[in-house]
Amino acid sequence: MRFAEPLQLQGGGTLADYTLVYETYGTLNADKSNAVLVCHALNASHHVAGMYEGDPKSIGWWDNMVGPGKPVDTDRFFVIGVNNLGSCFGSTGPMHANPATGKPYGASFPVVTVEDWVAAQALLADKLGIAQFAAVMGGSLGGMQALAWSMMHPQRLRHCVVIASTPKLSAQNIAFNDVARQAILSDPDYRGGDFYAHGVVPKNGLRVARMVGHITYLSDDDMAEKFGRKLRNAAEGNAYKFDFGIDFEIESYLRYQGDKFSEYFDANTYLLITKALDYFDPARAFDGDLTQALANTTAEFFVASFSTDWRFSPERSREIVQALVCNRRRVTYAEIDAPHGHDAFLLEDARYINMVRAYYERIWDGMKGQA
Amino acid sequence: MRFAEPLQLQGGGTLADYTLVYETYGTLNADKSNAVLVCHALNASHHVAGMYEGDPKSIGWWDNMVGPGKPVDTDRFFVIGVNNLGSCFGSTGPMHANPATGKPYGASFPVVTVEDWVAAQALLADKLGIAQFAAVMGGSLGGMQALAWSMMHPQRLRHCVVIASTPKLSAQNIAFNDVARQAILSDPDYRGGDFYAHGVVPKNGLRVARMVGHITYLSDDDMAEKFGRKLRNAAEGNAYKFDFGIDFEIESYLRYQGDKFSEYFDANTYLLITKALDYFDPARAFDGDLTQALANTTAEFFVASFSTDWRFSPERSREIVQALVCNRRRVTYAEIDAPHGHDAFLLEDARYINMVRAYYERIWDGMKGQA
Repeated sequence: MRFAEPLQLQGGGTLADYTLVYETYGTLNADKSNAVLVCHALNASHHVAGMYEGDPKSIGWWDNMVGPGKPVDTDRFFVIGVNNLGSCFGSTGPMHANPATGKPYGASFPVVTVEDWVAAQALLADKLGIAQFAAVMGGSLGGMQALAWSMMHPQRLRHCVVIASTPKLSAQNIAFNDVARQAILSDPDYRGGDFYAHGVVPKNGLRVARMVGHITYLSDDDMAEKFGRKLRNAAEGNAYKFDFGIDFEIESYLRYQGDKFSEYFDANTYLLITKALDYFDPARAFDGDLTQALANTTAEFFVASFSTDWRFSPERSREIVQALVCNRRRVTYAEIDAPHGHDAFLLEDARYINMVRAYYERIWDGMKGQA
Repeated sequence: MRFAEPLQLQGGGTLADYTLVYETYGTLNADKSNAVLVCHALNASHHVAGMYEGDPKSIGWWDNMVGPGKPVDTDRFFVIGVNNLGSCFGSTGPMHANPATGKPYGASFPVVTVEDWVAAQALLADKLGIAQFAAVMGGSLGGMQALAWSMMHPQRLRHCVVIASTPKLSAQNIAFNDVARQAILSDPDYRGGDFYAHGVVPKNGLRVARMVGHITYLSDDDMAEKFGRKLRNAAEGNAYKFDFGIDFEIESYLRYQGDKFSEYFDANTYLLITKALDYFDPARAFDGDLTQALANTTAEFFVASFSTDWRFSPERSREIVQALVCNRRRVTYAEIDAPHGHDAFLLEDARYINMVRAYYERIWDGMKGQA
C-alpha cells in the first residue's frame, strides 16, 4: 500500500512518501469486526503465516500461531501482517531511494519509533476500512506495538495481546543493543551507512550484532541443555584445537546464526530497530508512571511471559499487568514455565499455545454475543 | 624472572624461552612458610597491591585485599603476584619476539591454558625457594588457577582460596567469549594477528569485546540502579536524540570502558585469555566428575560467591563445594548477598572482606600452631 501523504514522525522528521507491505490471511467479515493485526519483532516481517507457492521453506514466522484451525484461527479471523517502516523486507526502508535525492536513504533514514509504526499501521487500517480490530497482538517488540496501540488508539482494538514484552528496556537491554550498534557502526564496510553505493555489506558487524543478540534470546539453561560444552569435532577424538577456530558446538551454532543473518538483514535496519526498542517507554511522558500511561486504554488484555526469559523477564510483564489492574482493566496474565528463554514466544509450547487459543476462542465467543 | 628451559604446554607446543614478571609484598619468613600466591583474572596483572613511586594512579587491582593490615596482611604474609604467560603486562606474550623468528609472535603465540600458567607459576616458586604456599588465591579466572594448583600440586599449598569462580564455563559463557573473539578477529586492523608490524591496533574489535564482557561483569539490578534509563543529556532538556549517537548514560559508560580498554590491552592477549577460560574444565578428564577431579587435593578451601553474579553464579561455586565435601575436604563456603554482580570480588563489601580477613587470621593462627 502506497501512501503519498507525508508521515510526521516522533523524532521530528517526516517520510514524504512511503509504502507498507502487508499480507492478509482469512476473510474480512461483512461488518469488518474480525480483523487481527499481528505486529512483528526485530527480524521478522509481514509474512506471518503460510508459505509462498513453490517455496516450501518460506514458512511464516508465526505459522504455529496463525492459520486455519490454529490459535489465531484464520477460518474465523482476518489476520493482517504489516512490515514496519525502516525494515528490509519490503516496506520503505534505508535501502530505498529517498525521493528528495534519488539515492538510498542509508543512515539518513529517519529514526522511527514504535509509535511511528503504530501510526503507519493505523493509516493502513484506515485504507482497509478497518475501524476497530478484534485484537492487536505481538511478541517482544511486537508486544510493544500492541501496547502502544492500546494507548494511542484505545477505541480501535477490543483486545490487546502482549507476549514476552516489556513496558521499557532496562539498562542491560540497552547495553546489549549498543554493543550490536557499535559492532555495525565500526565495521569499515558500513561506510557511514552508504554501503549500498559501494557494493559492500558490513557483514562482520552484523554478524557480531546477531551473535550477541542471539545469546539474549536463549536461556542459560536451554543453552546448557542443547550445547553445554559439547565439542564440534567430538567424533574426531574430542580434543581441544588450541587455536582461535571453532572448538565448541555453541561457537559453531552462534557463528552460523550470525553468518546467515548477515546474508539477508540490512545493517541500517538493525540500527533503526534497536533504537526503536531503546526509545519505547510510554510511561516516560508520565514521569515513569505506567498506570497513568495506560489510563485511557479500553481494550481487554492478554499478557504472557516465560519463566526463563531473561531478556524481557516475567517481572516486566507483571509491571504491565499491575498497571492495568490499577486501572481496573480486564487482564488475563499467563506466566509460562518454559525452558526456551525469550525465544519461547515463537516456539511450540502446549501450555502457551493453548492459552492463546483459549483467549481467541473467547474473543470469538464475544463477537457472537456470547461473552 | 627469566626461564631458559623450554616450557611444555598443554596444547602440545613449547615456549622455548620466557620471562615471568612478578611483584612481591611483605617478607618471606625464615622457613618460607608464609608465602601467598595471588593469581590474576582477565585484564589484571602481577601488580596486585600498592602503587608505584610517583604514580598515585597506579593502584594495584586487589589493593583493598592485600597490604599491611589488610585481609591478606603483608605484615604477616609474603604475597606474590605473577603476570601470566600470554599477557600484555610484561611476561612473555604475543607482542614479544619469537626467538625462532626474531619477529613478534602475534597470533602464533601458543594457546596457553590455566594449567600452563600454574606450571609456570610453580617453576617461579621453585626459583624463589618456596616449596609450599600458605595459600594460593584468586577471583574469577584467578580462582580457576587456585583450583588448578590444588589439583596439580596438592602438596604445595595449605589453603586454596577460590572467589567468584567456576569449575568450567557454561555454553553461555563460551558464547559471550566467542562474540568478543569474533569482534577482534573480524576487525581488519587485526591483520591476522600481525598488527604490530603494521603499526595499527584492532581497537574497534577490542572495544566491542570489552563492552560485551563488561555487561557480564555487572548485575542487571546494579546497572538499573546506576544507570537505569538515564539520558546523558538530561541537563539539556532530557530529549531523545533520534540518531545513532549516545542517548543513554549506560551507552556512554560502556563505550568509555571499551575505548579505555582498547587503548591499553592487547588483542592477541584477549583472544588467548578467553580461550584459557573456555578450556578450563578439570572434570573433563574424569568424564565430567568434579569429585574425582578433586580427589587428590589436600588443601583446605575457602570458596566464595556473590548472589547477583550471573557470569559465574553461586551455583557454580556450590558445585566446587559439593565436590570437595564429597571428598571430605575441609571447606568454608561464603555465599555473599551483594548487588554488584561478578565485579563484586574486586569491590569493597564489608561481609566479603571480613570473611576473607577472618580466613587469613585462621591461616595465620594455624602457622603459629594454634589452629
